[in-house]
This record gives sequence, C-alpha cells and structure tokens, in this order.
Amino acid sequence: MAQEKEATSAMEWRIKMADGSSESLAPTEARGCPGIAWLALKGLVVGLVMKVCDFLKKAWDLGHNEPRKVIHGVKVGMALTAVSLFYYMRPLYEGVGGNAMWAVMTVVVVFENTVGATLSKSINRICGTLLAGFLAIGIHWIADRSGKDFEPFIIAFSVFLLASAATFSRFIPSVKTRFDYGAMIFILTFSLVSVSGYRVDELFDLATQRMSTIIIGTCLCIVITMIICPIWAGEQLHMLITGNMDKLANSLDGCVADYFNDSGDFAGSDKESDKKLLGYKCVLGSKATEESMANFARWEPAHSRFNFRHPWKQYLKIGASMRNCAYCIEALNGCVSSENELTKKHISNIAIKVSSRSSIVIKELARTMKTMKKSSAIDLLVGEMNNAVLELQEDLKSLPNLFINPKPLLQEPECPENNTTTKAEAEATALMDIIPLVTLASLLIEIVARVEGMVSAVEEVAKLAEFKAVGAEKANQNQTSNKIVPNQSAHQRV
Amino acid sequence: MAQEKEATSAMEWRIKMADGSSESLAPTEARGCPGIAWLALKGLVVGLVMKVCDFLKKAWDLGHNEPRKVIHGVKVGMALTAVSLFYYMRPLYEGVGGNAMWAVMTVVVVFENTVGATLSKSINRICGTLLAGFLAIGIHWIADRSGKDFEPFIIAFSVFLLASAATFSRFIPSVKTRFDYGAMIFILTFSLVSVSGYRVDELFDLATQRMSTIIIGTCLCIVITMIICPIWAGEQLHMLITGNMDKLANSLDGCVADYFNDSGDFAGSDKESDKKLLGYKCVLGSKATEESMANFARWEPAHSRFNFRHPWKQYLKIGASMRNCAYCIEALNGCVSSENELTKKHISNIAIKVSSRSSIVIKELARTMKTMKKSSAIDLLVGEMNNAVLELQEDLKSLPNLFINPKPLLQEPECPENNTTTKAEAEATALMDIIPLVTLASLLIEIVARVEGMVSAVEEVAKLAEFKAVGAEKANQNQTSNKIVPNQSAHQRV
Repeated sequence: MAQEKEATSAMEWRIKMADGSSESLAPTEARGCPGIAWLALKGLVVGLVMKVCDFLKKAWDLGHNEPRKVIHGVKVGMALTAVSLFYYMRPLYEGVGGNAMWAVMTVVVVFENTVGATLSKSINRICGTLLAGFLAIGIHWIADRSGKDFEPFIIAFSVFLLASAATFSRFIPSVKTRFDYGAMIFILTFSLVSVSGYRVDELFDLATQRMSTIIIGTCLCIVITMIICPIWAGEQLHMLITGNMDKLANSLDGCVADYFNDSGDFAGSDKESDKKLLGYKCVLGSKATEESMANFARWEPAHSRFNFRHPWKQYLKIGASMRNCAYCIEALNGCVSSENELTKKHISNIAIKVSSRSSIVIKELARTMKTMKKSSAIDLLVGEMNNAVLELQEDLKSLPNLFINPKPLLQEPECPENNTTTKAEAEATALMDIIPLVTLASLLIEIVARVEGMVSAVEEVAKLAEFKAVGAEKANQNQTSNKIVPNQSAHQRV
Repeated sequence: MAQEKEATSAMEWRIKMADGSSESLAPTEARGCPGIAWLALKGLVVGLVMKVCDFLKKAWDLGHNEPRKVIHGVKVGMALTAVSLFYYMRPLYEGVGGNAMWAVMTVVVVFENTVGATLSKSINRICGTLLAGFLAIGIHWIADRSGKDFEPFIIAFSVFLLASAATFSRFIPSVKTRFDYGAMIFILTFSLVSVSGYRVDELFDLATQRMSTIIIGTCLCIVITMIICPIWAGEQLHMLITGNMDKLANSLDGCVADYFNDSGDFAGSDKESDKKLLGYKCVLGSKATEESMANFARWEPAHSRFNFRHPWKQYLKIGASMRNCAYCIEALNGCVSSENELTKKHISNIAIKVSSRSSIVIKELARTMKTMKKSSAIDLLVGEMNNAVLELQEDLKSLPNLFINPKPLLQEPECPENNTTTKAEAEATALMDIIPLVTLASLLIEIVARVEGMVSAVEEVAKLAEFKAVGAEKANQNQTSNKIVPNQSAHQRV
C-alpha cells in the first residue's frame, strides 16, 4: 500500500512537471472507468520502474562494496568475446568447424569466480568428456558389430544403465565434493555421442574437434582467470578464517564488556553492539562457504604464500573449533542478564581480564595465520589466559562472603565476620542474584577451554604448512602491545 | 601402510587360491628386481581393486539406506533413453532436425533430485533462452542494418556487455537464490545465437527448433519427476524440520540425564550418548540444506498436504529458532562436568523435570508440524514447562543451606540451623562445586526461553498455513501420554 501511494505521488509530480500547469489528477472519480484504468496502469509502470531502480541501486552497492565481483563479470565478458573471435576468423573457424559452439559453451559453464573452482570444473569437464567419449565410441563399435536389429537396443540400454549409475554416483559424498560436475558432463557426452553416433560415421573426427574446442575454451578460461586479478579460493578461505578470528575476539570482548556496562555509559552503543553481535554470527554461518572454499582450494597451484599442498582441510578444523567457541559466546550472550550491580562489580574486572586474555590469544592466532609465522608468544599468552581463569575461580570463591553479608560489602568487602546473622532467605535471594554471574564465569571458563582447542588446531596447520618462527623480540613486542590495548579499553569502558 | 599390508596379504591369499599349492611369495628378496617390480605392480592393482570394492560398498550402503537416490538415478536414465528415441524415430527427428541434441542436453542439465529444483531449473532455462533469443535476434537485426564493417564490432560489444552484466547479476542475492541458472542460460544462449547468427540467416527457424527441443526436454523431465516416485523439496524440508525437532528433544533429554548419571548405570551407553550427540549436531549443521530446500519448495505446486503458497520461508525461522536452542545444548554439553554427587542429587530431579518438560514441548511442536494440526495442549505444556522452571529456581534458592552445612546434609538436608559454624573456606569450596550445577540450571532456563521462541515460530506457521485444530480430547490424551513417558524414563535413569 505504501509503495502504491509513493508511486501515485511520484506520478503526480511527474505529470505536473511535464505539463508545467497546476492541474492535478486528484479528482479521478469524475473521469470514470477508463481514467482509473489508465491511472492504475501508470501506477503499475511507475511502481515497476521504482522496483527496477531499487534493484539497480542494490546492484550498484554490491559492485561498490565488492569490486572483485564486477571484475569477475568483466573477465567472463572478455573470455566470451575472445572465444567468439573463432567465428570471425576464417582459418580458425574452418579448423574446428561448427563445433566452435562448444568453446562458447565451455567458457560460459566453466568460468567461475575463483581460480580453484574454474580449475576444478575445467579438469572435470575434460576428464568427463574424454572418458565418456571413449566409452561411447567403444559401445558404438560393439553395437555396430552386433547387427542392425540389436544396435538401437544396445545403445539405449547402455545409455540407460550408465546414465542411471552416473547420476546415482553423484550422491556419493566422495564423488559429490570433487567430481559432481565431471559426472554430469560424463552423462551428457556419453548420451550425445552414443546417440549421434547412430547418424554420424566420422565419430573420431567429431570427437577430436569437440575435444579441441573444449580444450581451447578451458585454456582460455584458466589463462584469463589466473592472469587478470586472480581470485584464489585458498586466499579467500585464509582471509575468511583470519577475519572470523578477529570478529570472534572482538565479539567476545564486546559481550563481556557490555554485560558489565549495562547502564549504558557511552552513546552510540547500538551500532557497536550490533557490530559485536555480527561477529560471532558470521562465524556461526560460514560453515558452507568454508567447505566449498577448502574444496576448491585443493585444485589450485601454489600462489602467493601458499604451497600446492597447503593443508586446506585443516582450515576446516580451525573453522569448526571457532564455531565451538562461537556457540558458547552465543549462549553467554543469551543467558546472562543480571541487575545486581554489587556482585557484578565484584568480578567485573577479572571477568573482563579473562575475556580480554582469551581474545588476545585469538588475535594472536589470527596474526599467526595472517603472517603465516609461528608465534613464540602464544604459549605465554595461553599461560596468561589460564592464570586469569585461576584468578576468576579464586574470585568466585570469595563470592559467598559477599552474598552472606550483602550490606556491609560496600564499605568493607573483605570482612565477613562483622555480621554473623546468616539468614537463609537473604542468602537464597543473593544466590539467585549471582546465578547469571556464575553462569558467565562458567561459560568464560568453557570459552577458554575452547580457545585452547583453536590454539591446537592452528598449531596443527602451522606444523603441516611449515610456518616459520618469528624472532623472540618481535613476539614480545606483540605481546606487550597486546596486553596494553585491551586493558586500556577495559578501563575506559568500566 | 596398513592398507598396503592388507593388500599384500589379500594378494597372497588370492595367489594361494589360484594356484591351489602352498607356495608363498614371502622370500621375495631372492627373486631380484623384476620380481619385486612385478610384486609391486600386483600390489598396486590389488590395492586399486580393493579401493574400488570399498567405493562400491559405500555406494551400495548409500543405495540401501536411501533407495530414493537409486530411484532418481533410474528416472534420469529413463528420461534420457526416452529422449534418445527422437533420434531413432524418423518423423520426430526430421521435425526437430539436428537440434535434438538440445533435448538431451536439457534433460541432463535440468533433471534434479527434487521436483522443486527440476521445476525451478526448467522455468529458468525456458525463460533465459527466450529472453536471450529475442534480444540476440534484435541486436543481430540492428547489426545487420549498420553495414558489414560495424557488424562484428556491434555483436562483440553486445556480447561483452551483456555477458559481463549478467555474470555480475548472478552475485546479487535476489537473483542468486532464484534465477542463477536462468542468468547462466541467458549468457549461453545470447552468445551462441548472436555469434552463430553471423553465419546462419534462418535465425528464426533455428530459434523455434531449439525452443521446441528445449520445451520437449523440460516437459519430459517435469512429467517423469512428478509422476514416478516424486521427491518434493517441500516435503523433504518438512520432514527435515520435524525430524530435527525430535532429535533436539532427545538430545536435550539425553544430555541432562547423562549429566546426572555420570557414574554409568547402564551398559551400552556409548552408542546411546553418541546418538544423543548426533541429535543437536544435525540441527546445527542443517542450515544450508534448509535454505536450498525452502528455495526449491517455493516453485512446487500443491502436493499432499501442502498448498501452493505454503509458508516455506517461515520454516527457515523455525530452523533458526531450533539452532538457537541447539547452541545452548551444545554449551550445556560442554561446560557441565561436576563430581559433587551431593549437590547433584539435590537438583537432579527438578533439572530432569525441566528438561523433560522442555523436550515434551518440542515433541509436541514436532507432532503439530507432522500432523499439521494445531495442538490445543501446547499452552498447557508450555505452562508446565514454565512451572518446572519456577520449581528449579526455588530449588536453587535452597542450595545455600546445602553448601553452608555440607556434612549433615546426608541425613537431614532441610535443617540448616543444626550447625552454625559458618566457615568461609568451606563455603568457598562448596560454591566452586555447585558452579557447574548453577550453570546447568541457568542454561536450562535459557533453553526454556528458546523453546518458547520455537513455539512462537511454529505458531506463526500454523497461522499462515491454516493448520486445523485437533479435538480437545485427543490433545489431552497426547498430553497425558507425553507426561508419562519421560517421567518413566527419568525414573529408570535416576
């Protein structure tokens, strides 16, 4: 309804502009049915135009934010234009004949966003076509020998059998992850060749022509995708994982700081907390992307800092350990909401310390992955994180003093002997108050354990990919600068 | 290494069988280089054979467990065999000419596992081909008018521009979810037509022939996919969601019961706990499947109990609320591990009650979805769940009595006045002991809140899809039978 209204007003404005007079279309009732229909049609058109404008705006924003996607579009356009040159250059055209169509088709179908995906599809296409071609020619030869009567039956039966089997094989996980496209191309080529073989006798000529066009198409794709602004699936995966680590660290910091800062000290916290929330949600939702990226990255040759046999599979383990951590942050974010300022203050410093120590460890892991150099500080940082946990546990032990004598705490938090009137009811209420706090502490401790899982997953990658060690001095520098930053921010916030 | 050993031993066995003699190949060193090479080759072949056998076994298991996937393979085989009949029937062949290839290609590319996916691809293919065909013919006409010199440039430029734009449009989310395949076909057809148009003058004839073959192919696919054992994406989504609900309920029950039953009362708990773990992990990992299913389900016509405009999008919300719940269960599963049997026993009954009440609610939601009938008992069950939470909170309030006087508890848990020597240290240790318990309780309370989120998501679906109400009597029956089962199991377990 709102859209309609908008559209109508926009149209009114347009008509005013066009006429230059002050005539308005408001008294439409007087104009009768055709007038209304005309108006409705115009409204519809304007609405459509606005929808298109909206779509174009979205597209523009996407292109503006991720110029790589625009570049990919341009690359595909270039590849297709290049391949259509075959039709215009007579010698080339006569070389491959009408089969040039297959080069165009190959480019359209094979050209993917990342190098790994393009390579995977190219290899799948070539292997699938070759295998199916040879098999089809073989079966055609057998069918040819067995006489005119049996020929159609043999071919139809072989098509049925192989198409069924190959289609089913696409469900098998090991085939699905790597050779799904190849299986499809196998079915396609086999059916086309064995069926057209009934008409055409020069099957070998046809096959060589088709293979050469497919190879031309794939080579063109591979060259263009690898030379012009290549987008490597491995690099994307690497950036995704390290970026998610940073987000996780920030959202851990943000969650705990927000909890102890409920009163809302600083303005504009909405956007900040939104961003914080976004952090772990990104980690929770990136499983499918990670898997497909890791799958494509395996096909890629060595590029920038990654070898051919870079342990991409191990990245999935890091991703899983990060998700484990994110589950806990999500639970923490959900189930802590306390109003008791007293107990909050009591452990806020140490809880923030634990969370900042954990996020320092996560950030150090992110740095390890980014620089691809072993961190010599990580053991120390993990040790500090564990020490913070021990401190937190010590602080928790002193909580009973707090909630047995809640009143005198404000002045002397450390003297439980002052007031010995231990009333069960007061305790009970106090315990209910500290439940969120205890939960927070307990989840923090669990998060620390899961961060250690991340540490070991990253260490495994570092071992498999043979990360180099950085100098001890540099690591110490990193470590001290790390220490200062979160503490500062914690102080600012508390 | 183990595989090699296995292969060698299998080979030895084979050779023994074949020879019938007791000659063994063990003293290979005596045979020299060719002997070793021969042995290595044989080992390789046997290893390969065993790998193939392993693969076939996996495939057999998959086919055995999910016969629908085999049926899909058979359906594709049938469709392809049917379409190749065009080549054998002369009148049909002469009708469509060499373009019959496009029918084969359409069947291979368009035939998908579910009806929704097949329909979506068919419609995408037809629309993409039509749109691109008309546009290409139009541009070809313009290029034709502008003289021989400009023709190639106009065509090349239009191919570049439209291919780039269409490729980029595939990244825009609204296009990606619904028209990704259509955009690809658009690029393909446009390039093929505008490029081949340079050679062939009878473009319209070609276009009609190609369209008719594509329509024949898609119609064949749609008919076969909808008539022979149809697999509806909507139904699959429905089954996935309801199945996941059951799994969630079971894993919630299992987690809490396991926690209070750490001593290991019953044998064979490994498998059971594995199954329990599997439950919520399925929920955590099914986001991508749910999204693609919901996307395909939108294209499907009314089938079995679902209307054309069934609120499939709302199912995604149910899925999200279930994942929310699963995050908490995952955190609960991770961060509770206590050894203090005393405090455990104190709240085990009520904690199990809360979890069983929650899982009853989830199971009732699953039943609502399965039967597609509004449950009249759900409000009552939610009320009971909330009452159980209140009881749990009451029980938590009585915990201080426990851990101030931990010793006399065994005999008289309800008399805190007996011993008034309140030692801070004892309290502290005791508090540390109950931390996991408090965390468990707190997470349970959060889970209950999230189960209520699931309830509202299901109610929204029930409203949008106009579920009918069941009779009050039947609901009561369900409810009482629900009540009994988990209580019994809880008693058996405790």
